[in-house]
Amino acid sequence: MALLVYKFGGTSVGSAERIKAVADKVKKAHDMGDQIVVVLSAMSGETNRLIALAKQMQAQPTEREMDVLISTGEQVTVALLTMALHDLGCEASSYTGAQVKILTDSSFTKARIRKIDDAKLRKDLDAGKVVVVAGFQGVDELGNITTLGRGGSDTTAVAIAAALKADECHIYTDVDGVYTTDPRVEPKARRLDHITFEEMLEMASLGSKVLQIRSVEFAGKYNVALRVLSSFKEGNGTLITYEDTQMESALISGIAFNRDEAKLTITGVPDLPGVAFKILGPIADANIEVDMIVQNIADDATTDFTFTVDRKDYQRALALLEQTCADLGARKVTGDNTIVKVSIVGVGMRSHAGIASTMFKTLAEEGINIRMIATSEIKISVVVDEKYLELAVRALHAAFELDKISA
Amino acid sequence: MALLVYKFGGTSVGSAERIKAVADKVKKAHDMGDQIVVVLSAMSGETNRLIALAKQMQAQPTEREMDVLISTGEQVTVALLTMALHDLGCEASSYTGAQVKILTDSSFTKARIRKIDDAKLRKDLDAGKVVVVAGFQGVDELGNITTLGRGGSDTTAVAIAAALKADECHIYTDVDGVYTTDPRVEPKARRLDHITFEEMLEMASLGSKVLQIRSVEFAGKYNVALRVLSSFKEGNGTLITYEDTQMESALISGIAFNRDEAKLTITGVPDLPGVAFKILGPIADANIEVDMIVQNIADDATTDFTFTVDRKDYQRALALLEQTCADLGARKVTGDNTIVKVSIVGVGMRSHAGIASTMFKTLAEEGINIRMIATSEIKISVVVDEKYLELAVRALHAAFELDKISA
Repeated sequence: MALLVYKFGGTSVGSAERIKAVADKVKKAHDMGDQIVVVLSAMSGETNRLIALAKQMQAQPTEREMDVLISTGEQVTVALLTMALHDLGCEASSYTGAQVKILTDSSFTKARIRKIDDAKLRKDLDAGKVVVVAGFQGVDELGNITTLGRGGSDTTAVAIAAALKADECHIYTDVDGVYTTDPRVEPKARRLDHITFEEMLEMASLGSKVLQIRSVEFAGKYNVALRVLSSFKEGNGTLITYEDTQMESALISGIAFNRDEAKLTITGVPDLPGVAFKILGPIADANIEVDMIVQNIADDATTDFTFTVDRKDYQRALALLEQTCADLGARKVTGDNTIVKVSIVGVGMRSHAGIASTMFKTLAEEGINIRMIATSEIKISVVVDEKYLELAVRALHAAFELDKISA
Repeated sequence: MALLVYKFGGTSVGSAERIKAVADKVKKAHDMGDQIVVVLSAMSGETNRLIALAKQMQAQPTEREMDVLISTGEQVTVALLTMALHDLGCEASSYTGAQVKILTDSSFTKARIRKIDDAKLRKDLDAGKVVVVAGFQGVDELGNITTLGRGGSDTTAVAIAAALKADECHIYTDVDGVYTTDPRVEPKARRLDHITFEEMLEMASLGSKVLQIRSVEFAGKYNVALRVLSSFKEGNGTLITYEDTQMESALISGIAFNRDEAKLTITGVPDLPGVAFKILGPIADANIEVDMIVQNIADDATTDFTFTVDRKDYQRALALLEQTCADLGARKVTGDNTIVKVSIVGVGMRSHAGIASTMFKTLAEEGINIRMIATSEIKISVVVDEKYLELAVRALHAAFELDKISA
C-alpha cells in the first residue's frame, strides 16, 4: 500500500467527461489499496474566463480580490470530481486550500506556502477516503484567500506530498513523460524512465515545459519523488528523484533547446573593474532577464561582452546597450535575433570526461558553427544559427545514443 | 449616518455592466456618509450552470459537495463588485460566508444560520470601508461550506443586519416595492410606502413573490427593518417593519391572490371524533400540502369536509380521497381545479369591524359566488371560480379604496 498524491491539470479536468475519466483512474488506484490525495487545477479556460470578467471591472484588478475570484475555479473541480467518485461508490471529500489549511504568506496572486496542516487529510486517508484538494490556493494568517501563481497546482501537490511524506507525487499532464528531446524535432526521441531533479531543472529551464520549474525545485528541496504521466494514456511515465538510481547512468539524459533566444554583443569595452555591472545593470533595471553571459578579453585593454535575452526583449535590450556603449566609450554593439540555444543535459557528465568534445566534434562534422558556449556542472549549452536547430538536435541525439536508451 | 445592509439578487449582478451599476449605487450611498454592507447572490444563471455540471457527475449529487460547488457563484460576484468599487476609488473588501464567519448547522443545501461573527465586518466599517459579503452561504463548526437553500441571500442580508443592528436592510429586486395588488391584474394598484411584517407574510404566502417568506419571518423575529427597492429604478420602495408606524392605518393594505388552487370535498362523512385526521392523514403522508380547510355539519350525523391543495397535487389528492371515502363509508367526493383564492390583508382589520361584510357585499354585487371562506386575524380569504379572479381583485381594490392610498 502506497500513499500517492495525484495532480491533474486543467486539460485533464476540462469537461464533465474528462472529470469522470479522472474519477475512474483514481477509483482504480484506490481499489488496489493505495491511499490517494488528488490535487486539481481549474477546468481549462475557466481561469481565463474569470480574469476577463475581472478586467471588465478594473483595468488592474486588486490582487486580493483576484485571488478570491480565481480560486473558485479549483473549488468547482474538486466538488465535481468528488461527486463523480461518489457516483462510483468511492468515498471521498473535497477541500479548498483554506479548509485544508494550506497556510501561505500574504503575497496575493503569487503566495508562497509556509505550512500545511495535514490533520484533516490524514484523518480522511486513515478512514479509507480519497481526499480531493483544490490546487493553486491557500490562506494567509488573517484568513484571506491566496493563490500561488503560475504552476501553483503542481506546487500544491508537491507540498502536500512532502507534508504527508507520500511515496510519490504523480503529475498527470498531456504528455506521457519526459523525453530525451522534443519528439516533434527528433522522432527517435525516447521517453526516459528516470531523470534526476537537477537534470529535470536544466531541461525545464531550457524549454521542456512538462513541469513548472518551481514545483521541481520544491520537490527536490523536500525530496518528494515526482512522476510525470499522461492523463489520457496508460504508462509509467518518468520518475524524477533526487538521486540517480540507475546502476550505470547514461552519459547524458536529454537534449533541450530554446528557440526564443537573441544575442547581443558589445565590443571594445575599456576593461575596467565593474564593467559587467555597468553593461547589465540597465538591462536588469528594465526587467529584462539575461540568460547566457560570456566575456572575452579581445585585445590589449578592451574586452568583448556577449549575452542572450528572450527574443521579445531584443529591441529594448539593443537600445539600452547602444546607450551603454556611448556612455562607456566602447567600440560598437551588434546583435542577432535569429539564434537558438541547444543544450545537452546529464548527471553523467560529472564522472565522464570528453562529453564536451564529443558535442563540439558532432556539431563541427555537420558544419554547424558554434556562436557561444556556456557550461554548468551537468549541462553544456551552445548558441547556433536558428536554421541549424533540428540538425543539431538530431545529430547530438544520435551521437549520444539517446535513441538506444533503455526504456 | 446610517448603517445599512444592501442585498442584490442574481439579476442585479447578472452582467459586468450591472455589477458596475451596483458599484455606482453603493459608492453614492457610501459617499453620503452611510456605512454599507453589501450582500450578493450569484450572477443569474450561474447557479443553474453549476447544478447542471453536478448532475453530469452524479444523478443525485452529494449535498456537501453541492455546497462546495454552488457557493463559488457568490464568491465570484463579491470579488467582482469589490474590484468595481476599487475602480471607483471606494475602499472595500470581500468576504465569503466562511471568512465572515457565518456559522450554520450542518444541514447541507438548507443550512440554518446559528451565529454571525461581526468582528471583521465592524472593523472594516469602522475603517470607512464598504464590506461585500457572499450571500446564501456559511460554514459549519467543522469548517465545511454550507448553503442556506432558497432565498438564502435574503436571509444572509437580514441576519447580518440583525447582528450589526443595522438601521435598515435593503433588498434590491426587479420590482420597486410591494403593491396593493398585482398591477398586471389591476392597473390602479399602488406601491405601498409601508407594510407590517405580518401583512407581508400573508401577502408573500399568498403568491406575492417579492421576498422569500423565510427572510421576512427572520426579519420579523429579529426586528430588522426591511426595505424592498428596485435595482434599476430610483425610489424609496416599501418599508417593512414590525410595528405599524402610520398614525392612521389603512383598513387593509393589499389584495393577494393565488391561481394555483384546487378544491376537494367529501360529503356525508359519519361525524365521529378523529374524522379530520382520517381524511387529512393520507394526504399529509403523500407530502401534499393542504391550504384552506372548512368543515360543516351537513345534517343529522354526517359532516361535509372541504379543503384546498396546490393544483399540481389535485389528481393525487382526489385518488386518495376516493379511497378514504370508501374506507369511512362517506357519501361522495367532488373536486374542482378551476378555482382561485382571493384574500384581503391588513392589520387594520384588528380594530375595525365590518371588513368581512364589505368584502362579501362587494363580491355579491358583482355576482361572484363565494365557494369557501377562511379567516385569520389580519386576512380574509375566499375561494371563487377562476373566471372571476380579475373582477374580484378590481372590485375589492376599489371597495377598499386602495387606489387612493397615500403614496
